[in-house]
Amino acid sequence: MPAGTEPPALSVLRWAEPPEGPVLVLLDQTRLPVEEVELVCTDVPALVRAIQTLAVRGAPLLGIAGGYGVALAAARGYDVAEATGLLEQARPTAVNLGYGVRRVARVYWAALEKGLGADQAAGAALAEARVLHREDAAASGRMARHGLALLEELLPGGGHQLLTHCNSGALVSGGEGTAFAVALQAHRAGRLRRLWVDETRPLLQGARLTAYEAARNGMAYSLLTDNAAGSLFAAGEVDAVLIGADRIAADGSVANKVGSYPLAVLAKYHHVPFIVVAPVTTVDLTTADGQAITVEQRSGREVTEFTPPHAVSPDGAAGGLLVAPLGTPAYNPAFDITPPELITAIVTDEGVISPVTGVGLAELCARSSQVTIS
Amino acid sequence: MPAGTEPPALSVLRWAEPPEGPVLVLLDQTRLPVEEVELVCTDVPALVRAIQTLAVRGAPLLGIAGGYGVALAAARGYDVAEATGLLEQARPTAVNLGYGVRRVARVYWAALEKGLGADQAAGAALAEARVLHREDAAASGRMARHGLALLEELLPGGGHQLLTHCNSGALVSGGEGTAFAVALQAHRAGRLRRLWVDETRPLLQGARLTAYEAARNGMAYSLLTDNAAGSLFAAGEVDAVLIGADRIAADGSVANKVGSYPLAVLAKYHHVPFIVVAPVTTVDLTTADGQAITVEQRSGREVTEFTPPHAVSPDGAAGGLLVAPLGTPAYNPAFDITPPELITAIVTDEGVISPVTGVGLAELCARSSQVTIS
Repeated sequence: MPAGTEPPALSVLRWAEPPEGPVLVLLDQTRLPVEEVELVCTDVPALVRAIQTLAVRGAPLLGIAGGYGVALAAARGYDVAEATGLLEQARPTAVNLGYGVRRVARVYWAALEKGLGADQAAGAALAEARVLHREDAAASGRMARHGLALLEELLPGGGHQLLTHCNSGALVSGGEGTAFAVALQAHRAGRLRRLWVDETRPLLQGARLTAYEAARNGMAYSLLTDNAAGSLFAAGEVDAVLIGADRIAADGSVANKVGSYPLAVLAKYHHVPFIVVAPVTTVDLTTADGQAITVEQRSGREVTEFTPPHAVSPDGAAGGLLVAPLGTPAYNPAFDITPPELITAIVTDEGVISPVTGVGLAELCARSSQVTIS
Repeated sequence: MPAGTEPPALSVLRWAEPPEGPVLVLLDQTRLPVEEVELVCTDVPALVRAIQTLAVRGAPLLGIAGGYGVALAAARGYDVAEATGLLEQARPTAVNLGYGVRRVARVYWAALEKGLGADQAAGAALAEARVLHREDAAASGRMARHGLALLEELLPGGGHQLLTHCNSGALVSGGEGTAFAVALQAHRAGRLRRLWVDETRPLLQGARLTAYEAARNGMAYSLLTDNAAGSLFAAGEVDAVLIGADRIAADGSVANKVGSYPLAVLAKYHHVPFIVVAPVTTVDLTTADGQAITVEQRSGREVTEFTPPHAVSPDGAAGGLLVAPLGTPAYNPAFDITPPELITAIVTDEGVISPVTGVGLAELCARSSQVTIS
């Protein structure tokens, strides 16, 4: 793609109001890159299903989807308290989901308390979801700028070879994403030599989604199996690792897609910066440390079967081709935890924390909430 | 499976002499675990194809297959020099392939030099291939015993949780294999609590082959994506790593299936023993160090496409389902190199080397050749 020519923004999630009533329209990420298909959610159980099958996924986007989910329940006259509970529980690890749900629900209940009618409260909820959506897009832009500045500082001269895991681009965000947005900013600044894309087993979000976004943006990229990253480090072909986060505990421990922790250990061993990029909303000061983070265990069928990118069912992998003997047990955590001592820096929309300490995180969160209040 | 009941030995490779002429019959490993299908090679190009598509694979078994390949060329009256060249070049990394080919070829040429006829020379070649086959089975038993003794020493008390990568069992050997044979020995001794099986992308030899062998032998095992091993280490659920080797350089650097090196780094970081199990024939004193080992780069289609376990073609992945955008470039080394400082011990049929040093390896090889000569 010629420099300066950017592809149209991806429509990953939008609110629509057809004559039959309001709906939340999602780009079905399980079908990418084979097909671009939209999924229309008319109620919260449908949205919960979309969240659990990973049709919609990625920490910041889950927050936005959760917020719109509450607005959808309110607009359609469903039980908002029940909807809130269902959405908060849909996936246990990503903190942003609960954040978005509770934030929009609070506005809804506050409107009712003020004596507004259900319609007006629903309107207030939708307005809040839209604010959250816009805020996330803006946060994404700030993370990209902070991240690029950090790369310039750590790796002066450009020509970066960056390694990323899972997907953290426009498909996880109201904007251009988290870790991927930093790599995209480096690409636009002419600083990116190559983006190494881990395929990210078992659900191949790297191969299916990050490669799709990299190709769409005309970036130089190469795909690899997760276990081939070691050879790249050993050959000196990785200048920095960039990943997103699903939850950041008070001590700076980061929960992210399984496979992040081994990259952090490899990066440490090879003296390569390991950089986490996430909005401040991903920090959860009520979770003390890594051990306190609940890690979602997913169906073993995601590992024992291979499911083509258009046949994922709610239990994770129906319609799959068996790749292991029938009855094979599998260990399939969705996330792993990287402790702060392995993380060079956490890049947020409110600035960079490096070294990563609990005090630094607490200060950043305090500053961020002041900004929001003022 | 009840203790003491062992499954019938796998017939992974056998020489047969039907009326149409001698053939080499291979269990087609690309179709496992879905189907147990035999592949009949009537000439060397067919065998080379089987080696390149990984229908027959695994360092020791490649040596045996190469030896029988020379015997097949001789028995069928083909050009033995040409066959030798084709077989030696079929895959560049495994040292055993060239060893087996050259050993049998030497016997063939020596017979001709002594004035024996072509038929007798062919008979001598076949006899030598059979000796190599039997020797490998015996070596496998010795490695299993040495390996179990080492585990007892490093981890007294049993209840081992062992992690393995790729496949190194009966499917790679004239006997029960290398690293897997040690785990099987631990299982038979009642010392194995669990075998963690890395799926081993891109070709899933762990999921397809090691899980198949573990299930067949009634072992307690669990399958995981390669990138989930980090979580197991962090949780203290790995007591030792056991892998095979495709080539061991003079300094103790080990080439093995891609994904071995990251496990070695994880093991080092978590103070877990990292043990390589391979016959002395895998040691190549003419390769000085890890940098001197040629690593085979395979087709990117193995990564960008998913190929079910019965549709692998000679270029690696035809008939696959696309899992990345069309045109996605991939980095796909078949092996990686683990340096000696990350290896706790190398277990061979002639004894254990620990710590791993060039001097120790050279002494072992010298002792081994004395044993052979005496």
